Amino acid sequence: MSQPQTAITPRRDEDFPEWYQQVVKAAELAENSDVRGCMVIKPWGYGLWEQMQHGLDGMFKATGHKNAYFPLFIPLSYLAKEAEHVEGFAKECAVVTHHRLESDGKGGLRPAPSAELAEPLVVRPTSETIIGATYAKWVQSWRDLPILINQWANVVRWELRPRLFLRTAEFLWQEGHTAHETLEEAVAETQQMLGVYETFAREWLALPVFTGEKSESERFPGAVQTLCIEAMVQDRKAIQAGTSHFLGQNFAKASGIQFLGRNNQQEHAWTTSWGVSTRLIGTVIMAHADDDGAIMPPRVAPAHVVIIPVTPKPETRDAVLAAVESLAKELRAQSYAGEPIRVEIDKRDIGGGTKSWEWIKKGVPIRVEIGPRDLEKGSVAVGRRDRGAKEKEFLPTADLVGKAAGILTEIQQTLLDRATAYRDANTVKIDSKEEFYAFFTAKNANKPEIHGGFALAHWNGSREVEEKIKEDLKVTIRCIPFNASGEDGKCILTGEPSFRRVVWAKSY
Amino acid sequence: MSQPQTAITPRRDEDFPEWYQQVVKAAELAENSDVRGCMVIKPWGYGLWEQMQHGLDGMFKATGHKNAYFPLFIPLSYLAKEAEHVEGFAKECAVVTHHRLESDGKGGLRPAPSAELAEPLVVRPTSETIIGATYAKWVQSWRDLPILINQWANVVRWELRPRLFLRTAEFLWQEGHTAHETLEEAVAETQQMLGVYETFAREWLALPVFTGEKSESERFPGAVQTLCIEAMVQDRKAIQAGTSHFLGQNFAKASGIQFLGRNNQQEHAWTTSWGVSTRLIGTVIMAHADDDGAIMPPRVAPAHVVIIPVTPKPETRDAVLAAVESLAKELRAQSYAGEPIRVEIDKRDIGGGTKSWEWIKKGVPIRVEIGPRDLEKGSVAVGRRDRGAKEKEFLPTADLVGKAAGILTEIQQTLLDRATAYRDANTVKIDSKEEFYAFFTAKNANKPEIHGGFALAHWNGSREVEEKIKEDLKVTIRCIPFNASGEDGKCILTGEPSFRRVVWAKSY
Repeated sequence: MSQPQTAITPRRDEDFPEWYQQVVKAAELAENSDVRGCMVIKPWGYGLWEQMQHGLDGMFKATGHKNAYFPLFIPLSYLAKEAEHVEGFAKECAVVTHHRLESDGKGGLRPAPSAELAEPLVVRPTSETIIGATYAKWVQSWRDLPILINQWANVVRWELRPRLFLRTAEFLWQEGHTAHETLEEAVAETQQMLGVYETFAREWLALPVFTGEKSESERFPGAVQTLCIEAMVQDRKAIQAGTSHFLGQNFAKASGIQFLGRNNQQEHAWTTSWGVSTRLIGTVIMAHADDDGAIMPPRVAPAHVVIIPVTPKPETRDAVLAAVESLAKELRAQSYAGEPIRVEIDKRDIGGGTKSWEWIKKGVPIRVEIGPRDLEKGSVAVGRRDRGAKEKEFLPTADLVGKAAGILTEIQQTLLDRATAYRDANTVKIDSKEEFYAFFTAKNANKPEIHGGFALAHWNGSREVEEKIKEDLKVTIRCIPFNASGEDGKCILTGEPSFRRVVWAKSY
Repeated sequence: MSQPQTAITPRRDEDFPEWYQQVVKAAELAENSDVRGCMVIKPWGYGLWEQMQHGLDGMFKATGHKNAYFPLFIPLSYLAKEAEHVEGFAKECAVVTHHRLESDGKGGLRPAPSAELAEPLVVRPTSETIIGATYAKWVQSWRDLPILINQWANVVRWELRPRLFLRTAEFLWQEGHTAHETLEEAVAETQQMLGVYETFAREWLALPVFTGEKSESERFPGAVQTLCIEAMVQDRKAIQAGTSHFLGQNFAKASGIQFLGRNNQQEHAWTTSWGVSTRLIGTVIMAHADDDGAIMPPRVAPAHVVIIPVTPKPETRDAVLAAVESLAKELRAQSYAGEPIRVEIDKRDIGGGTKSWEWIKKGVPIRVEIGPRDLEKGSVAVGRRDRGAKEKEFLPTADLVGKAAGILTEIQQTLLDRATAYRDANTVKIDSKEEFYAFFTAKNANKPEIHGGFALAHWNGSREVEEKIKEDLKVTIRCIPFNASGEDGKCILTGEPSFRRVVWAKSY
C-alpha cells in the first residue's frame, strides 16, 4: 500500500524508536558525542531548553525560591550516608580518583600516580547529600527555616544504554532542595511543586499529565513519598516527566540538619527535593512530533516565526530583504503570552524549498515566505506547523502582524487538544487479568510497534503484584492518582479487594 | 588613632585579603564546601551571577551567537591533541577513571575495579578540544561557516590555593567558540567579543578596564593571540576579568575542522574562543565594596531595592505590611535600564536595625524603611549604598516611586566614576628602573598591604625582561594596550629602544 512521502523516514507507525532518533537528528536538537552516553545539545535543542528554563524559573521564583549553586563533586563518604540512597545511586557513577595528569612517556597522558585523591569524588548523580551537608551548617534555629533553593546544573549517571534526551550519562536539570520546620510545610511544598510541574507541562509544553504518587518500588531512593507527573507519548508509553519528593527527616538525619525549635528542643528539619531534566525535550518530541519532524509548542519554541526571503533574482534581492527585516521588526514588537514574538530570519544562500523543509523538520510554529511577487501584492505566504506541510495561506502583511499572536495561541491549544485526545483515547479502564494482559501484548496490525496505552486498573497494594506484572509484561505502576479512592474493585491479578484504580503502563 | 567602627573587620587598609573573605561571608555570596576548592554559591551571590549572565547573554545574542551544550567529560587523548594546550592544561585536572562504585565490605564504598574506564575522562578545564571534534563533524563546506556558539557551563581546574570566586577548582563561566572561513573574520570576532566584554564591564559592572593583548608568556595555551580586559581592584592589583583568543588554525588542525572552500580547495577553519567566569563576582566585590560590605552595581544587583517593614507594635503591623506590599508593587511597575525594578521585602521577624545592616553588607543599592510613623506622614526613610550607612533621606512615598530609577542610575554612575578615579590615580607612567622597582615595593604607611598600582612603562619586547621582573617583583605585563604605539622610549630594564608603553602590575 503506497504511503504519502514524509520528511522523516521511517514513519512513527513503522519504527517508533528509530523515528524518534531521526526526528532529533533532522530537527538538529542533539547528537551523540565521542564520549559514551554524553550528548551534544545543538543550538535549536538548547534553545528549547532555555525556554523551558525560563518558564520554570519564573514559576519557581513566583513560589518563593531562589537559585544557588553547589559543588559538582561529592565525597564518596557522603553518598554512603543515607542507606537507601546509597543503594539507589551508588551503582552507576563517574568517579574522580586523580587530580593531575602526567606524560605517559609515549606522547600521551596518564593520571599521575602521585596525584591520587585520598578520598575519591563522585560526579553528582543528584545533590541531596552535598546540599544536606551545607544546610546542616546554615540551619541553627527555626528562624533559619524554610530554606527554599533551586539549582540548575548538570548531573551524571552512568548509563549502559543511553538514548538522546531520555537517558544520557550527563544531563541538564534543575533540582529544588527545601528544608522546613514542620512535616506539614514540607508536604505542602512537595505538593506545590508537583502542581508547578503539572501546570508547566500543560500550559507551556501542551502536555496533559497524570499526577499522583509512586508506589514504594518506584520511589526515589531515600524518599518517604515520591510524587510525579506522567505523560503519554505517541507509542502510548509513559514518560516520567517530573518528580517531587517528600524526604521526611531521612536526609536531615543523615546530614545532621538540626535546629532549635520554638519549644526550645533540638529537632531535625523536614526536607523535600524536586526536579525536571532535559528528558522533557525528549518528551515534547515524542508527544507532539509527526512524520515531518518536530513540532514545537509555541510557548517553548526557540523561535515562533521564521521568515524566509525568496530571492531568485539579484535585482529584487535588496527589496525583499528590506521587507523581511521590516516584517521581523513589526512582529518582534508584538507580544505573545506576555513576551515579544521571537523571530528568526533565514538568509542562507540555499534554495527556498530546502529552507522551508528544514524549518518544518525543526518544528517552528509559523513559517513566512516573502518573494518579489508577494512584495508587489503586499502579502506573505504563511505556513503553520499544526497543519499540512503544503498548506499555505496568503495574507496581507499587516494582517499577519496583527494575527501572529492569535495563531500561536491557536497552535498551542491545538497541540494540547491533540495530545489530550490521544491520551484519553488510549487510557482504558480494565477489570480482568485477561483483558489487561491482552492490552499490553496485543499488536495492532497498522502499528506493529505500538501496544497498549495506559490501563486504569485495581491493585491490592502489594509489591509482589507489581513485580509479577513487571516480569510478565514490562508494565509498571506509573502513579497512584490523587483522589483515586472512592471506587471499589478487585485487584487485576489476585482478585483481592482494592479501593482505587492505579495507572499502569510501559514506560521509558 | 581611633577609627570609626565598620561593619567589616578588618578594614581594607588593615588586611585586604582578609577583608575580602569577610565581605564575601558577610554579604552571603559564597562559602567553601567540604570538597576542597569547590565553593557553594549562595543565593545572593548566584543572583549576582544570574544578572551578569542575563546582561552578557543578551549581548552575545545581539552579536549573532546562540547557546549550545557540550559534554562535561573530555577523553584523555583529546587533551593531548594540541601541543601547547596540553602543556597548559594537562597539569591540574580532575580525572575520572571508574564508572561504578561497590561496597568496600566495611560499610563504605569504593570504585569498582571491574568498572575501570579503558580511557580515562578529564572533567573539562575548557572545551576547545571537545568542541573542535564536534565542529569537525559539522563543517563540510564554506557554507557551514561561521559557527557562532556560546556555552554556559561549569569547568574544573585543580587549584592548590583556592580563593572564593577568584580561584576555585570548580567555577562557572561562559565559553564562546566560533569557527570562520577566513583569518580576517576570526580576528574581527576576537576583537568584537573583547569589545562586548569591555562594554559589559563598564556599563553593567561599573568597571573601567584596560583592553589589549597579552604578551606571549601570558597567552592562552594554543592561541595565536590573547586579548584581555584588565581591571584594577582596591589593593591596586590587576584582575584579568575576561579573555578573547584568536586561535588561528591551531585547534582546527588538531581537531580536523576542514571545509571545501569557495575555490574548491580543502582548508582549515579559523577559530576563536572567549570567556568570562564567576571570577567577575570577586572582581566586582574587590573593586566596589567598602568597609561596610559589598556594594552592588545596580545593573547587576540581584535586588535594586529592599523594603524593610518596621513593626514594633502588633496593632500597626498589618497596616505597615500593606503599605510595604503596595510600595513594592508600584516600584516593580517602574523600569530601570529597560527592566522592571527588582524589589525584595524583608519580613523576617528580627530587629529593623539588624536587617538594615544585613542589607548594607549585601550591598543592595537602595534601602527603604517603613514604620507606623512614616505611614502617618506618607513618607519613607531611604538609604543609598553609595552614601554613608547612617545617612537617610525622608521622602514622600510617591516621590520615591518616581525617583527610584534615577537614583539607581546615579549610583551606577557614582561607582563607575569612583572606580575610574581610583584606577587613574594609581596608574602611573614610569621611566626608570629605580622608580619602577620602588613603585612595586614601597609600602605606604597608611596602607601597609597595598603597594604600587599599574605602571605604564616601556619594554623591549623580550621574554627575558618579563621573567626578570616577575622574579624580582611578582609583577607581570597585564596587557599591551591597543593603540599604544607612537610613543618612543627605552625599556625600563635594559634601556633598549621601545615604541610603546605596556601595563605592568601585580595580579590575581
